[in-house]
Amino acid sequence: MARIVMKFGGTSVQNIERIRNVAQRVAAQVAGGDEVAVVLSAMGGTTNQLVAWTREASPVHDAREYDAVVAAGEQITIGLLAMVLQGMGLNARSWLGWQIPILTDGIHGSARIEEIEVEALIERMRQGQVAIVAGFQGLGPDNRVTTLGRGGSDTTAVALAAALHADRCDIYTDVDGVYTADPRIVTRARKLDRITHEEMLEMASQGAKVLQTRSVEIAMNHRVPVQVLSSFSDAPGTLVVDEDEIVEKAVVSGITYSSAEAKITLQRVADRPGVAAAIFGPLAEDNINVDMIVQSASPDGDSTDLTFTVPRSDLDRAMQNLEKVKEKIGAESLIARDEVVKVSVIGVGMRSHAGVANRMFQTLAERGINIQAISTSEIKISVLIDAAYTELAVRALHTAYGLDAD
Amino acid sequence: MARIVMKFGGTSVQNIERIRNVAQRVAAQVAGGDEVAVVLSAMGGTTNQLVAWTREASPVHDAREYDAVVAAGEQITIGLLAMVLQGMGLNARSWLGWQIPILTDGIHGSARIEEIEVEALIERMRQGQVAIVAGFQGLGPDNRVTTLGRGGSDTTAVALAAALHADRCDIYTDVDGVYTADPRIVTRARKLDRITHEEMLEMASQGAKVLQTRSVEIAMNHRVPVQVLSSFSDAPGTLVVDEDEIVEKAVVSGITYSSAEAKITLQRVADRPGVAAAIFGPLAEDNINVDMIVQSASPDGDSTDLTFTVPRSDLDRAMQNLEKVKEKIGAESLIARDEVVKVSVIGVGMRSHAGVANRMFQTLAERGINIQAISTSEIKISVLIDAAYTELAVRALHTAYGLDAD
Repeated sequence: MARIVMKFGGTSVQNIERIRNVAQRVAAQVAGGDEVAVVLSAMGGTTNQLVAWTREASPVHDAREYDAVVAAGEQITIGLLAMVLQGMGLNARSWLGWQIPILTDGIHGSARIEEIEVEALIERMRQGQVAIVAGFQGLGPDNRVTTLGRGGSDTTAVALAAALHADRCDIYTDVDGVYTADPRIVTRARKLDRITHEEMLEMASQGAKVLQTRSVEIAMNHRVPVQVLSSFSDAPGTLVVDEDEIVEKAVVSGITYSSAEAKITLQRVADRPGVAAAIFGPLAEDNINVDMIVQSASPDGDSTDLTFTVPRSDLDRAMQNLEKVKEKIGAESLIARDEVVKVSVIGVGMRSHAGVANRMFQTLAERGINIQAISTSEIKISVLIDAAYTELAVRALHTAYGLDAD
Repeated sequence: MARIVMKFGGTSVQNIERIRNVAQRVAAQVAGGDEVAVVLSAMGGTTNQLVAWTREASPVHDAREYDAVVAAGEQITIGLLAMVLQGMGLNARSWLGWQIPILTDGIHGSARIEEIEVEALIERMRQGQVAIVAGFQGLGPDNRVTTLGRGGSDTTAVALAAALHADRCDIYTDVDGVYTADPRIVTRARKLDRITHEEMLEMASQGAKVLQTRSVEIAMNHRVPVQVLSSFSDAPGTLVVDEDEIVEKAVVSGITYSSAEAKITLQRVADRPGVAAAIFGPLAEDNINVDMIVQSASPDGDSTDLTFTVPRSDLDRAMQNLEKVKEKIGAESLIARDEVVKVSVIGVGMRSHAGVANRMFQTLAERGINIQAISTSEIKISVLIDAAYTELAVRALHTAYGLDAD
């Protein structure tokens, strides 16, 4: 007997027929003797519709009201699944965020879970009741509904698994696992049987949409074994595990790409102390994350060009800030470009292998792809390139690192 | 300065454009210096969709899960209205049933409000904040969401007005008041400027869909002045008031009809003590309300025919009960008929006027309409007739009681 958290996303609960399919999977898990908690998203499309209404209502949101509106979708799916399971003769009940409660901080729209009071849930799960929990939502210190940001149901599931000391958190989705690259681009992409938490974290941060970044952080910190698998097939999925559970570590586990960044260049910036602070200080104060930074000498030699990336969603705000900065520091021009893509090569084996970065640069150079910026971590190398080369770069790198399926 | 509760139904909050219209009305009320609480229904059609999903999920509902699902719609509209009002520069916030809380009993699906804790609301309303309250929903003793039955937002509004000691409860709807008869049938129907609580209660019970019956009961018991008016025009509405506020009392204020009943006849029932108890006891135990009852001698003289009405929605259940009863009491046959309509004539002036019932019988007789059953109260006479004669009967009675507009 194990204690399992099962999470189903929007496409898995799209309509009553699919909710019945979810119920079958839950019933099978219960029949195996496990204690089961289920976390659900809203029906696919519902949250988008709700978000669209909030935009139409007022371009400037009160985040507390936004949360009240967009949290409505999960309330519907959890009640419906409880009904279907009850109709099949199972003991089940739905739980809203405020009922458990799932306590979060007060950052409406992107709240962080602080505590989940699981005593009542555990007691009922021990008695054989399936706990069906609304994903994405919690209760803030102001006694109002909070939401965890897009994809937040993954986070609810993993945080609940951690609080319940669950044996596993199964994330059911519309793909059957984590791939070495996006299979829509790389036809020879392979499904990974196992991946480390750290690799999964980098992949999620660098554009792989299979899991929300925050959920992987929680899984890593609380050592929750996570499995990504399909609601629509019985194929085995991908296990996200601790590094010591993988004996044969691949040098590179996956190639990702992300179009979520935009590039900004300030030309002819005076090369003197305090200039970087004058540029990046106002962005930091406005909560805009700067990622890749490249400084290059201007042709005339007494000034530099500064290029960096910001999240595309923050580009307008960043440019407003920088227009002011440009005057102040006397830069010649300020240029924004959003036709860029960040391509990343990820793998824990990189730590103990030299030449990984070099192979990346060489592979891209051979295809005539210019690298506009570079950033690295211990287990990741990212490059910024022209968006038109996305597919070419990802496919070439996939082959170059020996990831292609036979 | 007054304290006003404004309630808007589903058609009034159908989309963002209409929610903006609601916001304009709320802003105008606030601009007049009033303290304002707003009660909203879900967008028109939403609750029907949610109910349909619950039926599809499982024909036998867990009422607690049903309530969780169907209460989602109001959460959306209150958040959106708060956003629109804030966008207009007003101070406003949304309140869910469990946040106030609106405490109800535990009868899920048709809960009754027991208490509304209004202290926080009043404090904020005094500071100029508009309280936007989800209609239809409350919090049960089991800490779960309850709903008040269809049309329950009217009840929320009137109960909130009573708890807030509001000066008036304005029910905004898609008609501009209470009419002497359904204007879709009687083109010469007149809008009433005033109507007594008791008349309104009878009209609501007897088929006028303008207000939920329970809301009128609360208005009557707590002496809440209610106004019914249109969200889409500035025409004055109908005031529902205490009887002593109406000087000139009409003998008849309105004609209603209801297709919500079905007729059951048991033929050749032995005329002996205990038979009525044997028939109506099981129905009462199964919570089926029997309304009109007619007992008539059978042609052979030693038995009787028994005819009565039950809510159409309970007809199947009633017939299952009565099949057993029929065997037991040895009745000859059991016949159900649902092509019947109950037409009612309502007016507080009836109390002091003779001949009101007679005029009704005579008017119907002149049109060749057969009366199948009769029931009366102090201020109402109802007759059951063949449904095919509905329009004819309502129009003839409207004219006979002098209600036609000039």
